[in-house]
Amino acid sequence: MTDKTVKESFMAGIKDYAKNIDQYLMEQLKGQEKNLWDAARHYISGGGKRLRPFMVLKSYELVGKKSSDIIPIASALEILHTFTLIHDDIMDKDDTRRGVPSVHAKWGEPIAILAGDLLYSMVFVLVYNANIPDGAKARIMKELGAVSVELCEGQTMDISFENRDDVTIEEYMDMISKKTGALFKCSAYVGGYAANESEEQLSNLKLYGQKLGIAFQLVDDILGLTADEKKLGKPIFSDLREGKKTYLVLYALENLDPTESAQLKQIIFAPEKSESDIQKAFELIQKSGAIEKARKLAEKYIDETIELLKVFPESKARKDLENLAKLAIGRDF
Amino acid sequence: MTDKTVKESFMAGIKDYAKNIDQYLMEQLKGQEKNLWDAARHYISGGGKRLRPFMVLKSYELVGKKSSDIIPIASALEILHTFTLIHDDIMDKDDTRRGVPSVHAKWGEPIAILAGDLLYSMVFVLVYNANIPDGAKARIMKELGAVSVELCEGQTMDISFENRDDVTIEEYMDMISKKTGALFKCSAYVGGYAANESEEQLSNLKLYGQKLGIAFQLVDDILGLTADEKKLGKPIFSDLREGKKTYLVLYALENLDPTESAQLKQIIFAPEKSESDIQKAFELIQKSGAIEKARKLAEKYIDETIELLKVFPESKARKDLENLAKLAIGRDF
Repeated sequence: MTDKTVKESFMAGIKDYAKNIDQYLMEQLKGQEKNLWDAARHYISGGGKRLRPFMVLKSYELVGKKSSDIIPIASALEILHTFTLIHDDIMDKDDTRRGVPSVHAKWGEPIAILAGDLLYSMVFVLVYNANIPDGAKARIMKELGAVSVELCEGQTMDISFENRDDVTIEEYMDMISKKTGALFKCSAYVGGYAANESEEQLSNLKLYGQKLGIAFQLVDDILGLTADEKKLGKPIFSDLREGKKTYLVLYALENLDPTESAQLKQIIFAPEKSESDIQKAFELIQKSGAIEKARKLAEKYIDETIELLKVFPESKARKDLENLAKLAIGRDF
Repeated sequence: MTDKTVKESFMAGIKDYAKNIDQYLMEQLKGQEKNLWDAARHYISGGGKRLRPFMVLKSYELVGKKSSDIIPIASALEILHTFTLIHDDIMDKDDTRRGVPSVHAKWGEPIAILAGDLLYSMVFVLVYNANIPDGAKARIMKELGAVSVELCEGQTMDISFENRDDVTIEEYMDMISKKTGALFKCSAYVGGYAANESEEQLSNLKLYGQKLGIAFQLVDDILGLTADEKKLGKPIFSDLREGKKTYLVLYALENLDPTESAQLKQIIFAPEKSESDIQKAFELIQKSGAIEKARKLAEKYIDETIELLKVFPESKARKDLENLAKLAIGRDF
């Protein structure tokens, strides 16, 4: 197959898996108090690639298992992610997400808090439905609790960065490792754990997910400054407008000469920014080499993920996990 | 022993059990991001009777098991409850709880949302630490997810009642059954389930917890109008001031003559209420017989709970669960 056909066939596979997840979720996510359940389903019914469920299912398939056993677990990872989006949007006062009103903007804060809590509650109801031994379910539920602790800590760090002017790249990497890396790590791990894979395999799957998650976030930072607005689902440069300390900003602050660094800092920290300020900040970031550096770093992580998968026999599932990693950095394959 | 000594010895037992729970929780509730963990521990470090953990442990002991096996599960029920308090306080805009600033009043809303999420996450981490078979842990975690769904639905109903003038007693009972009854039901059930009790025993334990929870809420409604402010931990009549549709208000609205019912309705729904309005509302409620009726109803539920326990052999644990029920309605024993 040509590279293009490989990519098309891979994307079709992702879509098929996502359809199974969506169908399962739409069956499960109902109950009393229609308003509450509507709010809980809001982001989910907007669609999505379901990358975390895909990772769960493919990690399970790596040793020849049939993914239909664990659709409930893969779906649980998606709603765990959605729960964090709903609560993060409240905290960040983001009134839209991917072009639609956020849950709190549409239903009000109280229902949005509850909709997040409800989805998180359903995580544990769903996992119990999987077709694997009960003992494995217990361990997986415990992992889902533990990863959520990391997500809370990561979000707390992210919030605390807002009012600080001395955030280091190291702290930023630690934050995204928790806020984005941890859930991908957990997705790969629970898929492998459900399939009873070896300690070495599980350890590699964790690293695979973790590194992929971090690369994913770095690429997200890059796209926020370089992507087409339509694909991005939010206005370009919004990270700069909100004064976010992304990898790019932090790298530029550390690597520009002192005058330019001070200039960038002033723009990023100003409560009001003109369009020419934003343009200037972008130019300074570009000049610092931050974008190139971030891309290289993401590529390095992705190369490492592909290496880590070699502990598994060659299979369609392994190829799919490799392709997923490549997809995360938008690399052609 | 005299009745007084029985009560004193029972209260000392509750205190002992609470000490074990508190000690375990203080060991477990720590991690990165001190601010977040401080916020999560805030209500817990204020102390409390730990009635839900007590119910878990005593339900486990009913068939001769040693409660030390499941301290982590009993503790999990306490933090699940605390998580709902933190989030409810945000939704209800309650800036104090038991005389101290609420979590969001002290740490701000974002950290309060996260502190609730964090405690809820720790529920599943803790359950996994219990000394029971993994299969039982999985089932218990699923029950904890399912009960939280009920709690979310109950809180949604409670919120929706605020803007309605046609709430029925039946709807109110349904709401408190979810918002308060469900967690007591779950507490008794998971203790029994962990001890591998029979289907009949488990079914009775569920009803025991459910009825006790409802009685507990009815008594809470009564105390809100009749108790000593110091014991209450909040100003007397605050339910009336906030226009809450408690059992007492709904009963009075349904049972007073039309003129008086209209008068009460007008006071309850008025955005501003004078102290003489509040006094008048209280008198109307008293006149309707609501307080007597609520007390009778709570007593009926408590009598039923004691009956339900007879499916277990006589033991100290059974006696303690009977006494817990009596304590809930403040009956001397």
